[in-house]
Amino acid sequence: MDLDPQTDLHFTRTLSVPRKLIWECWTSPEHIPHFFVPRPHKVTSCDIDLKVGGRFNTTFEVEGKPMDNHGVFLEVIPDEKLVFTDAYTEGWKPAPDPFMTAILLLSDASDGGTTYTAIARHRSPETRQAHEDMGFYGGWGTVADQLVEYAQRLMK
Amino acid sequence: MDLDPQTDLHFTRTLSVPRKLIWECWTSPEHIPHFFVPRPHKVTSCDIDLKVGGRFNTTFEVEGKPMDNHGVFLEVIPDEKLVFTDAYTEGWKPAPDPFMTAILLLSDASDGGTTYTAIARHRSPETRQAHEDMGFYGGWGTVADQLVEYAQRLMK
Repeated sequence: MDLDPQTDLHFTRTLSVPRKLIWECWTSPEHIPHFFVPRPHKVTSCDIDLKVGGRFNTTFEVEGKPMDNHGVFLEVIPDEKLVFTDAYTEGWKPAPDPFMTAILLLSDASDGGTTYTAIARHRSPETRQAHEDMGFYGGWGTVADQLVEYAQRLMK
Repeated sequence: MDLDPQTDLHFTRTLSVPRKLIWECWTSPEHIPHFFVPRPHKVTSCDIDLKVGGRFNTTFEVEGKPMDNHGVFLEVIPDEKLVFTDAYTEGWKPAPDPFMTAILLLSDASDGGTTYTAIARHRSPETRQAHEDMGFYGGWGTVADQLVEYAQRLMK
């Protein structure tokens, strides 16, 4: 994938969880609340229609205030690639002021683990910088930690 | 489909051409130049990778000046639904200032014809109005006329 350092953020990590389980956690409304936002923030609802153009809607509770996030999936390749964005809501309705497009890439790592790449693409260098300043690396890194912790509990 | 009169433009027509052929014309780089922009404007190149996230790039010649249009397909359901936009280029790179998302819907009409619906969704009422002022109805209507004329020649 041809990334643009001006507008994209990304990192790759090896997670000690099989990619089938990572995929399941990232695409199931019952799993999402367990890892999807850095604690103590909370996911209070999650509505998923897992298909191209299908909805990926969540509500967070951030310092006691609800925050609605409406988006869609752009690409769904089971166990391998998930692309979603807030640039559209269901029915391909363009959002007035989208923030980002996220790409998750999963591949096999040694010992049954997963090579996990998270990419956030933005439409301008300013939006990319705002996302970095909001704590992209720490936030998405914490989500990856929480995901591993939660998935390992499911494996037991 | 839940349309929004504030931000969407659309029309439906019955075309006396089978929908398989309409689909073929709309998705083949060799057919596109024959109908895709109102004459005397010209399509001088067309590059298509017909899949979700695949490129839909064209160059027009408008009053002697080349105009590049880069976009992707968002949804591809053969003979039925085609969604494309300039909001992304290949690899899900968000465009800084997208104009619209187009949805073509094809279904069977009587006598082997096609019910043809063209929808353009915009991110703001201002963009919708700009598109109407640019001549959405006339332009897309002329494209539909040119498409029927061209496709009927292919049928002979």
